[in-house]
Amino acid sequence: MTSAIPRAMPDPSPTLDPTMTWLDAIQWSADGLVPAIAQDATSGKVLMLAWMDRDALARTTATGEAHYWSRSRGRLWRKGESSGHVQKVREVRLDCDGDAVLLVVEQVGGISCHTGRERCFFQRLENGRWVGVEPVMKDPRTIYARD
Amino acid sequence: MTSAIPRAMPDPSPTLDPTMTWLDAIQWSADGLVPAIAQDATSGKVLMLAWMDRDALARTTATGEAHYWSRSRGRLWRKGESSGHVQKVREVRLDCDGDAVLLVVEQVGGISCHTGRERCFFQRLENGRWVGVEPVMKDPRTIYARD
Repeated sequence: MTSAIPRAMPDPSPTLDPTMTWLDAIQWSADGLVPAIAQDATSGKVLMLAWMDRDALARTTATGEAHYWSRSRGRLWRKGESSGHVQKVREVRLDCDGDAVLLVVEQVGGISCHTGRERCFFQRLENGRWVGVEPVMKDPRTIYARD
Repeated sequence: MTSAIPRAMPDPSPTLDPTMTWLDAIQWSADGLVPAIAQDATSGKVLMLAWMDRDALARTTATGEAHYWSRSRGRLWRKGESSGHVQKVREVRLDCDGDAVLLVVEQVGGISCHTGRERCFFQRLENGRWVGVEPVMKDPRTIYARD
């Protein structure tokens, strides 16, 4: 019942056609997007979830810096383009169904969230309420200041 | 330029109306879903990404076991209902925009993926190819065997 598969045994659940290009292997949504999780390479913390289109993912791997598709702005978004909080990508992973991406990143500046926090997942459910449990590291008015 | 906000200073970017119930604070998609990341509480590994509807998230917090909405099966799915690979939820987090959930879980059996691997993100991009880099821990034909 708990016997492991011998190493030489073929994977009983192959998910990819080896003739596919790596971008075609992704199960893009009807909108042409895939959710992408960014995880900090050092701390292991899950920093954020954003969305990528084909171009964003291609640019991410070509440049080594995370690019996303901003659904709110309706355009390509190089993470850190305004804030300087670039994400240097150490590893790109795909899940079993090909419909979710995981980026392992080095977060420049130690801040991934537009609120000035280390990460976007700063609200924890406690007794039926979302409670902010991580400090603002830097005032976002300073991060995004112009002129 | 790098000055931190004093602790007593109000958060300049509050995201939640405190009169909202916690489920209403979530920005459900047009389909009534939100992406949910499961992260292993011990190893910190990102195990999987799945989807939740309101009922799935409510049941998750009520029972302490992860429930998702299976898009492929079109129904509520208690993780581990067939495999026994239940996820005991240690923490539920919400991101800054309220449109992504993070579960910190104890993965019973040490296997979260239906392919019999520790986690779903087992394919790594290497020189333009997705390469499976994590072993099958248990034959899925055994995990899901019936009679």
